[in-house]
Amino acid sequence: MDDSRRENSAEHSWHLAVMALTLGEYAEPGTDLAHVVKMVLVHDIVEIDAGDTFAYDTQGYTDKNEREERAANRIFGLLPDAQRDEILALWHEFEAISTPEARFANALDRLEPLLGNYTTGGGSWKKAGVTLAKVQKRMEPIANVSAALGAYVQQILSESVAKGYLRES
Amino acid sequence: MDDSRRENSAEHSWHLAVMALTLGEYAEPGTDLAHVVKMVLVHDIVEIDAGDTFAYDTQGYTDKNEREERAANRIFGLLPDAQRDEILALWHEFEAISTPEARFANALDRLEPLLGNYTTGGGSWKKAGVTLAKVQKRMEPIANVSAALGAYVQQILSESVAKGYLRES
Repeated sequence: MDDSRRENSAEHSWHLAVMALTLGEYAEPGTDLAHVVKMVLVHDIVEIDAGDTFAYDTQGYTDKNEREERAANRIFGLLPDAQRDEILALWHEFEAISTPEARFANALDRLEPLLGNYTTGGGSWKKAGVTLAKVQKRMEPIANVSAALGAYVQQILSESVAKGYLRES
Repeated sequence: MDDSRRENSAEHSWHLAVMALTLGEYAEPGTDLAHVVKMVLVHDIVEIDAGDTFAYDTQGYTDKNEREERAANRIFGLLPDAQRDEILALWHEFEAISTPEARFANALDRLEPLLGNYTTGGGSWKKAGVTLAKVQKRMEPIANVSAALGAYVQQILSESVAKGYLRES
Protein backbone atom coordinates (compact mmCIF):
# COMPACT_ATOMS: atom_id res chain seq x y z
CA MET A 1 0.00 0.00 0.00
CA ASP A 2 2.42 2.63 -1.27
CA ASP A 3 -0.19 4.63 -3.26
CA SER A 4 1.64 3.84 -6.53
CA ARG A 5 -1.58 2.41 -8.00
CA ARG A 6 -5.06 1.28 -6.93
CA GLU A 7 -5.35 -2.13 -5.32
CA ASN A 8 -6.74 -4.70 -7.74
CA SER A 9 -9.59 -7.11 -7.02
CA ALA A 10 -7.35 -10.14 -6.43
CA GLU A 11 -5.27 -8.22 -3.86
CA HIS A 12 -8.42 -6.79 -2.24
CA SER A 13 -10.05 -10.23 -2.03
CA TRP A 14 -6.90 -11.78 -0.54
CA HIS A 15 -6.80 -9.01 2.06
CA LEU A 16 -10.44 -9.65 3.01
CA ALA A 17 -9.84 -13.39 3.31
CA VAL A 18 -6.83 -12.89 5.60
CA MET A 19 -8.81 -10.34 7.63
CA ALA A 20 -11.66 -12.87 7.99
CA LEU A 21 -9.13 -15.30 9.49
CA THR A 22 -7.47 -12.82 11.84
CA LEU A 23 -10.45 -10.64 12.85
CA GLY A 24 -12.90 -13.54 13.20
CA GLU A 25 -13.43 -12.84 16.91
CA TYR A 26 -15.30 -9.65 15.96
CA ALA A 27 -17.94 -11.50 13.90
CA GLU A 28 -21.36 -12.17 15.45
CA PRO A 29 -21.29 -15.29 17.66
CA GLY A 30 -21.81 -18.45 15.61
CA THR A 31 -20.53 -16.96 12.34
CA ASP A 32 -19.05 -19.65 10.07
CA LEU A 33 -15.70 -18.07 9.19
CA ALA A 34 -14.82 -20.64 6.52
CA HIS A 35 -18.02 -19.60 4.75
CA VAL A 36 -17.04 -15.92 5.10
CA VAL A 37 -13.67 -16.71 3.53
CA LYS A 38 -15.30 -18.44 0.55
CA MET A 39 -17.68 -15.51 0.10
CA VAL A 40 -15.00 -12.82 0.11
CA LEU A 41 -12.80 -14.84 -2.25
CA VAL A 42 -15.45 -14.72 -4.98
CA HIS A 43 -17.34 -11.50 -4.13
CA ASP A 44 -15.64 -9.28 -6.71
CA ILE A 45 -15.15 -11.73 -9.60
CA VAL A 46 -18.14 -10.11 -11.36
CA GLU A 47 -15.93 -7.02 -11.85
CA ILE A 48 -14.17 -8.89 -14.68
CA ASP A 49 -17.21 -8.08 -16.81
CA ALA A 50 -19.05 -5.41 -14.83
CA GLY A 51 -16.09 -3.22 -13.89
CA ASP A 52 -15.51 -1.75 -10.45
CA THR A 53 -18.15 0.70 -9.26
CA PHE A 54 -16.42 3.22 -6.98
CA ALA A 55 -17.97 3.15 -3.49
CA TYR A 56 -18.86 6.86 -3.62
CA ASP A 57 -20.07 6.95 -7.26
CA THR A 58 -23.84 7.45 -6.96
CA GLN A 59 -24.38 7.44 -10.74
CA GLY A 60 -22.48 4.16 -11.19
CA TYR A 61 -24.82 2.53 -8.67
CA THR A 62 -27.91 3.09 -10.85
CA ASP A 63 -27.17 0.07 -13.09
CA LYS A 64 -24.63 -1.74 -10.87
CA ASN A 65 -26.99 -4.59 -9.95
CA GLU A 66 -28.00 -5.30 -13.53
CA ARG A 67 -24.40 -5.23 -14.82
CA GLU A 68 -23.18 -7.48 -12.02
CA GLU A 69 -26.05 -9.96 -12.27
CA ARG A 70 -25.30 -10.42 -15.98
CA ALA A 71 -21.59 -10.83 -15.20
CA ALA A 72 -22.26 -13.39 -12.46
CA ASN A 73 -24.43 -15.47 -14.76
CA ARG A 74 -21.83 -15.48 -17.53
CA ILE A 75 -18.69 -15.98 -15.43
CA PHE A 76 -19.96 -18.48 -12.85
CA GLY A 77 -21.88 -20.14 -15.70
CA LEU A 78 -18.50 -21.26 -17.10
CA LEU A 79 -18.32 -23.76 -14.22
CA PRO A 80 -20.03 -27.17 -14.04
CA ASP A 81 -23.66 -26.74 -12.91
CA ALA A 82 -23.20 -27.70 -9.25
CA GLN A 83 -20.26 -25.31 -8.83
CA ARG A 84 -22.05 -22.56 -10.74
CA ASP A 85 -25.01 -22.87 -8.38
CA GLU A 86 -22.80 -22.89 -5.29
CA ILE A 87 -20.80 -19.82 -6.25
CA LEU A 88 -23.83 -17.91 -7.55
CA ALA A 89 -25.48 -18.60 -4.20
CA LEU A 90 -22.38 -17.36 -2.33
CA TRP A 91 -22.35 -14.19 -4.41
CA HIS A 92 -26.08 -13.55 -3.94
CA GLU A 93 -25.66 -14.15 -0.21
CA PHE A 94 -22.87 -11.57 -0.09
CA GLU A 95 -24.98 -9.04 -2.00
CA ALA A 96 -28.11 -9.56 0.14
CA ILE A 97 -26.22 -8.98 3.45
CA SER A 98 -28.85 -10.91 5.40
CA THR A 99 -26.81 -13.69 7.07
CA PRO A 100 -24.20 -13.26 9.84
CA GLU A 101 -21.55 -14.45 7.35
CA ALA A 102 -22.60 -11.87 4.73
CA ARG A 103 -22.76 -9.10 7.33
CA PHE A 104 -19.20 -9.86 8.45
CA ALA A 105 -17.95 -10.16 4.84
CA ASN A 106 -19.61 -6.85 4.05
CA ALA A 107 -18.06 -5.18 7.12
CA LEU A 108 -14.60 -6.36 6.04
CA ASP A 109 -15.27 -5.13 2.49
CA ARG A 110 -15.79 -1.64 3.94
CA LEU A 111 -13.03 -1.78 6.56
CA GLU A 112 -10.25 -2.86 4.21
CA PRO A 113 -10.42 0.15 1.83
CA LEU A 114 -10.59 2.41 4.92
CA LEU A 115 -7.27 0.96 6.08
CA GLY A 116 -5.91 1.39 2.56
CA ASN A 117 -6.98 5.03 2.36
CA TYR A 118 -5.59 5.72 5.83
CA THR A 119 -2.29 3.98 5.09
CA THR A 120 -1.78 5.91 1.86
CA GLY A 121 -2.51 9.30 3.41
CA GLY A 122 -5.96 9.66 1.90
CA GLY A 123 -5.74 7.52 -1.24
CA SER A 124 -9.00 7.46 -3.20
CA TRP A 125 -10.76 9.71 -0.62
CA LYS A 126 -8.51 12.56 -1.70
CA LYS A 127 -8.70 11.78 -5.40
CA ALA A 128 -12.51 11.80 -5.27
CA GLY A 129 -12.81 14.61 -2.70
CA VAL A 130 -14.98 12.49 -0.40
CA THR A 131 -16.12 13.98 2.93
CA LEU A 132 -16.15 12.51 6.45
CA ALA A 133 -19.96 12.24 6.51
CA LYS A 134 -19.99 10.10 3.36
CA VAL A 135 -17.30 7.77 4.68
CA GLN A 136 -19.07 7.52 8.06
CA LYS A 137 -22.29 6.53 6.30
CA ARG A 138 -20.48 3.86 4.29
CA MET A 139 -18.81 2.48 7.43
CA GLU A 140 -22.06 2.19 9.44
CA PRO A 141 -22.53 -1.55 8.79
CA ILE A 142 -19.21 -2.24 10.56
CA ALA A 143 -20.49 -0.97 13.93
CA ASN A 144 -23.68 -2.99 13.43
CA VAL A 145 -21.57 -6.16 13.31
CA SER A 146 -19.09 -5.22 16.05
CA ALA A 147 -19.08 -2.23 18.39
CA ALA A 148 -15.33 -2.72 18.90
CA LEU A 149 -14.59 -2.59 15.17
CA GLY A 150 -16.96 0.37 14.86
CA ALA A 151 -15.02 2.26 17.55
CA TYR A 152 -11.78 1.44 15.79
CA VAL A 153 -13.20 2.87 12.54
CA GLN A 154 -14.18 6.11 14.33
CA GLN A 155 -10.66 6.40 15.70
CA ILE A 156 -9.13 5.95 12.24
CA LEU A 157 -11.55 8.52 10.81
CA SER A 158 -10.73 11.09 13.52
CA GLU A 159 -7.03 10.64 12.85
CA SER A 160 -7.64 10.88 9.10
CA VAL A 161 -9.38 14.23 9.50
CA ALA A 162 -6.73 15.50 11.95
CA LYS A 163 -3.94 14.51 9.53
CA GLY A 164 -5.67 16.04 6.52
CA TYR A 165 -6.30 12.71 4.76
CA LEU A 166 -10.08 13.27 4.75
CA ARG A 167 -12.14 16.47 4.45
CA GLU A 168 -14.44 17.18 7.37
CA SER A 169 -16.95 18.92 5.06
CA MET B 1 -2.24 -12.80 -16.95
CA ASP B 2 -1.12 -10.58 -19.80
CA ASP B 3 2.64 -10.99 -19.17
CA SER B 4 2.97 -7.25 -18.43
CA ARG B 5 4.55 -8.06 -15.04
CA ARG B 6 5.06 -10.96 -12.65
CA GLU B 7 2.13 -11.99 -10.50
CA ASN B 8 2.54 -10.77 -6.92
CA SER B 9 2.08 -12.88 -3.80
CA ALA B 10 -1.39 -11.54 -2.98
CA GLU B 11 -2.66 -12.36 -6.47
CA HIS B 12 -0.95 -15.77 -6.41
CA SER B 13 -2.44 -16.58 -2.99
CA TRP B 14 -5.93 -15.51 -4.09
CA HIS B 15 -5.62 -17.72 -7.17
CA LEU B 16 -4.63 -20.71 -5.03
CA ALA B 17 -7.54 -20.13 -2.64
CA VAL B 18 -10.05 -19.98 -5.50
CA MET B 19 -8.46 -23.07 -7.06
CA ALA B 20 -8.79 -24.90 -3.73
CA LEU B 21 -12.53 -24.13 -3.82
CA THR B 22 -13.08 -25.10 -7.44
CA LEU B 23 -10.66 -28.04 -7.81
CA GLY B 24 -11.43 -29.57 -4.42
CA GLU B 25 -12.75 -32.79 -5.98
CA TYR B 26 -9.15 -33.63 -7.01
CA ALA B 27 -7.83 -33.57 -3.43
CA GLU B 28 -7.32 -36.86 -1.59
CA PRO B 29 -10.59 -38.16 -0.07
CA GLY B 30 -11.23 -36.60 3.33
CA THR B 31 -9.15 -33.47 2.68
CA ASP B 32 -10.43 -30.49 4.71
CA LEU B 33 -10.70 -27.83 1.99
CA ALA B 34 -11.36 -24.96 4.41
CA HIS B 35 -8.02 -25.83 6.02
CA VAL B 36 -6.34 -25.86 2.59
CA VAL B 37 -7.77 -22.41 1.89
CA LYS B 38 -6.39 -21.02 5.16
CA MET B 39 -2.99 -22.55 4.43
CA VAL B 40 -2.69 -21.13 0.91
CA LEU B 41 -3.85 -17.69 2.08
CA VAL B 42 -0.85 -17.38 4.42
CA HIS B 43 1.77 -19.60 2.73
CA ASP B 44 3.70 -16.78 1.04
CA ILE B 45 3.44 -14.01 3.66
CA VAL B 46 7.04 -14.80 4.71
CA GLU B 47 8.14 -13.36 1.35
CA ILE B 48 7.55 -9.87 2.80
CA ASP B 49 10.86 -10.33 4.65
CA ALA B 50 12.48 -13.31 2.94
CA GLY B 51 11.80 -12.35 -0.69
CA ASP B 52 10.56 -14.73 -3.36
CA THR B 53 12.89 -17.61 -4.19
CA PHE B 54 12.35 -18.52 -7.86
CA ALA B 55 11.21 -22.13 -8.20
CA TYR B 56 14.16 -23.03 -10.45
CA ASP B 57 16.84 -21.08 -8.55
CA THR B 58 19.00 -23.82 -6.96
CA GLN B 59 21.33 -21.31 -5.30
CA GLY B 60 18.46 -19.37 -3.71
CA TYR B 61 17.26 -22.59 -2.11
CA THR B 62 20.43 -23.02 -0.02
CA ASP B 63 19.34 -20.51 2.63
CA LYS B 64 15.60 -20.33 1.80
CA ASN B 65 14.50 -22.23 4.91
CA GLU B 66 16.54 -20.12 7.29
CA ARG B 67 15.39 -16.81 5.72
CA GLU B 68 11.77 -17.88 5.74
CA GLU B 69 11.81 -19.27 9.28
CA ARG B 70 13.15 -15.94 10.54
CA ALA B 71 10.51 -14.07 8.55
CA ALA B 72 7.69 -16.28 9.85
CA ASN B 73 8.77 -15.72 13.44
CA ARG B 74 8.91 -11.95 13.01
CA ILE B 75 5.76 -11.44 10.91
CA PHE B 76 3.41 -13.94 12.56
CA GLY B 77 4.91 -12.83 15.88
CA LEU B 78 3.18 -9.47 15.39
CA LEU B 79 -0.12 -11.24 16.14
CA PRO B 80 -1.52 -12.09 19.58
CA ASP B 81 0.06 -15.35 20.85
CA ALA B 82 -2.82 -17.70 20.01
CA GLN B 83 -3.07 -16.39 16.44
CA ARG B 84 0.70 -16.40 16.04
CA ASP B 85 0.80 -20.07 17.05
CA GLU B 86 -2.10 -20.98 14.74
CA ILE B 87 -0.65 -19.30 11.67
CA LEU B 88 2.91 -20.48 12.36
CA ALA B 89 1.49 -24.01 12.58
CA LEU B 90 -0.37 -23.57 9.28
CA TRP B 91 2.80 -22.32 7.63
CA HIS B 92 4.93 -25.16 9.01
CA GLU B 93 2.27 -27.63 7.91
CA PHE B 94 2.40 -26.21 4.38
CA GLU B 95 6.20 -26.41 4.32
CA ALA B 96 6.35 -30.00 5.66
CA ILE B 97 3.91 -31.35 2.99
CA SER B 98 2.98 -34.31 5.19
CA THR B 99 -0.81 -33.94 5.57
CA PRO B 100 -3.45 -34.37 2.80
CA GLU B 101 -4.24 -30.65 3.14
CA ALA B 102 -0.59 -29.61 2.72
CA ARG B 103 -0.14 -32.00 -0.21
CA PHE B 104 -3.12 -30.46 -2.00
CA ALA B 105 -2.00 -26.90 -1.17
CA ASN B 106 1.45 -27.75 -2.46
CA ALA B 107 0.05 -29.26 -5.67
CA LEU B 108 -1.96 -26.07 -6.30
CA ASP B 109 1.14 -23.96 -5.58
CA ARG B 110 2.88 -25.78 -8.44
CA LEU B 111 -0.10 -25.97 -10.80
CA GLU B 112 -0.99 -22.27 -10.68
CA PRO B 113 2.36 -20.92 -12.00
CA LEU B 114 2.23 -23.63 -14.71
CA LEU B 115 -1.10 -22.20 -15.88
CA GLY B 116 0.39 -18.70 -15.69
CA ASN B 117 3.41 -19.65 -17.77
CA TYR B 118 1.23 -21.47 -20.30
CA THR B 119 -1.26 -18.58 -20.53
CA THR B 120 1.51 -16.03 -21.11
CA GLY B 121 3.24 -18.05 -23.84
CA GLY B 122 6.14 -19.18 -21.67
CA GLY B 123 6.36 -16.42 -19.03
CA SER B 124 9.11 -17.05 -16.49
CA TRP B 125 10.08 -20.38 -18.13
CA LYS B 126 11.34 -18.46 -21.14
CA LYS B 127 12.95 -15.67 -19.13
CA ALA B 128 14.93 -18.24 -17.09
CA GLY B 129 15.49 -20.70 -19.97
CA VAL B 130 14.00 -23.58 -17.99
CA THR B 131 13.74 -27.00 -19.69
CA LEU B 132 10.86 -29.51 -19.83
CA ALA B 133 12.66 -31.99 -17.54
CA LYS B 134 13.03 -29.39 -14.78
CA VAL B 135 9.36 -28.39 -14.97
CA GLN B 136 8.28 -32.06 -15.03
CA LYS B 137 10.32 -32.70 -11.88
CA ARG B 138 8.72 -29.70 -10.14
CA MET B 139 5.21 -30.85 -11.16
CA GLU B 140 5.65 -34.45 -9.87
CA PRO B 141 3.82 -33.81 -6.55
CA ILE B 142 0.66 -32.94 -8.50
CA ALA B 143 0.31 -36.45 -9.96
CA ASN B 144 0.97 -37.91 -6.50
CA VAL B 145 -2.15 -36.09 -5.24
CA SER B 146 -4.34 -36.65 -8.29
CA ALA B 147 -3.69 -38.77 -11.40
CA ALA B 148 -6.26 -36.68 -13.28
CA LEU B 149 -4.53 -33.39 -12.44
CA GLY B 150 -1.18 -35.02 -13.25
CA ALA B 151 -2.46 -36.03 -16.71
CA TYR B 152 -3.74 -32.49 -17.24
CA VAL B 153 -0.29 -31.12 -16.37
CA GLN B 154 1.35 -33.47 -18.90
CA GLN B 155 -1.07 -32.27 -21.56
CA ILE B 156 -0.27 -28.60 -20.82
CA LEU B 157 3.46 -29.39 -20.91
CA SER B 158 3.21 -31.20 -24.26
CA GLU B 159 1.33 -28.26 -25.73
CA SER B 160 3.84 -25.84 -24.23
CA VAL B 161 6.73 -27.65 -25.94
CA ALA B 162 4.81 -27.92 -29.24
CA LYS B 163 4.02 -24.19 -29.16
CA GLY B 164 7.59 -23.19 -28.28
CA TYR B 165 6.71 -21.90 -24.79
CA LEU B 166 9.08 -24.40 -23.11
CA ARG B 167 12.40 -25.85 -24.30
CA GLU B 168 12.47 -29.64 -24.62
CA SER B 169 16.21 -29.72 -23.72
